[in-house]
Amino acid sequence: MTDSALVVFSGGQDSTTCLYWAIDRFGDGNVSCVTFDYGQRHRVELQCARSIAEFASVPQVELPIDTFAALGGDSLTDPGIDVAAQSDGEAGLPNTFVPGRNLIFLTFAAALAYQRGVGNIVTGVAETDYSGYPDCREQTLQKLQRTLQLGMESDVRIHAPLMHLSKKQTVELARDLGAMPAMAMTHTCYNGLRPPCGSCAACELRAKGFTEAGVHDPLLDL
Amino acid sequence: MTDSALVVFSGGQDSTTCLYWAIDRFGDGNVSCVTFDYGQRHRVELQCARSIAEFASVPQVELPIDTFAALGGDSLTDPGIDVAAQSDGEAGLPNTFVPGRNLIFLTFAAALAYQRGVGNIVTGVAETDYSGYPDCREQTLQKLQRTLQLGMESDVRIHAPLMHLSKKQTVELARDLGAMPAMAMTHTCYNGLRPPCGSCAACELRAKGFTEAGVHDPLLDL
Repeated sequence: MTDSALVVFSGGQDSTTCLYWAIDRFGDGNVSCVTFDYGQRHRVELQCARSIAEFASVPQVELPIDTFAALGGDSLTDPGIDVAAQSDGEAGLPNTFVPGRNLIFLTFAAALAYQRGVGNIVTGVAETDYSGYPDCREQTLQKLQRTLQLGMESDVRIHAPLMHLSKKQTVELARDLGAMPAMAMTHTCYNGLRPPCGSCAACELRAKGFTEAGVHDPLLDL
Repeated sequence: MTDSALVVFSGGQDSTTCLYWAIDRFGDGNVSCVTFDYGQRHRVELQCARSIAEFASVPQVELPIDTFAALGGDSLTDPGIDVAAQSDGEAGLPNTFVPGRNLIFLTFAAALAYQRGVGNIVTGVAETDYSGYPDCREQTLQKLQRTLQLGMESDVRIHAPLMHLSKKQTVELARDLGAMPAMAMTHTCYNGLRPPCGSCAACELRAKGFTEAGVHDPLLDL
């Protein structure tokens, strides 16, 4: 295992921040990223991810996952389900919840990292500012890391640098890492719009973070 | 979570034994199964799984996973790689090893179980008689169970009734559970043959178990 890193990269604000965090931590040339095409309704996400990876000179692997769409019941992949602002799923979870989605992303990322001798995985999940996805919590990631180490006989480490940051702090981190030019290429809006709709929960959360950090969001200049 | 079970079902000898174990343990009508179409070279496996599920009157869900083939490097999905009898992969693992494949199967099974309110997952993996796949070991499954419970906020339990059985004991269990008629429909051969080739590692392992148990393998009557 080399001291290199693989970033789980969606092309959104948080994983873009993580991409620059990984470059800062592991060094230019030691970072690659993986983007999952899991049938997301907003295909613009994949294009954003490609553009940002190219802009940052980070090699990117795009991996398909057709299983979530087959499982159904997910408003991010199923065009028959509206994205609700309010929680209405089981166990009080929002209906954008795919059970264990991040566990799957991280396990496939670990498989790819294993194949390439990469010892570190970086994910943009956070406990704060999130809708309570249980597979984004630090305790879950710790257990998953141990599961992956045992299941792949490796020393793979999962890093979640945004885990305990507020959206404000994440924006400040991105600014300090020089990630702002790339932020103009990110995608956040639940309604799939660029420029963003400005009124969905994701747009409002993003705007709040930038406002509180006193940083101008370059996405608004589109 | 009801006291029902979802069996990870490949249509092979071990998962067929588990299907009958689950019916015995959880009762007729409380068992369903999930079969993964992950691009396996031997498509006959999927047909065997369908036939056995129908024969056993167990509802079956077939879920696609196109990610392993995209990851490549796996002789069970990549037609460009020969299945070697000898270990030649990284860390001494055989080249049929897909890093974390069972972790992925069980995590998707847990997602499906979550959606359906099913509290138990049954898998046919075993520590004995296997090629040392680290994601088949009991310790890995224990960690994974905890990861899934945390990541999905559920009480899901993973059962691996064959974990510590020899192939001989697995055959005895199948016989005692009345699973022998279904055994004629299973698929084992690494070369994808029915009747089996009789000479690959999988065929030899199966034959050894039946011989040691003193049970006739109905698959040989094809």
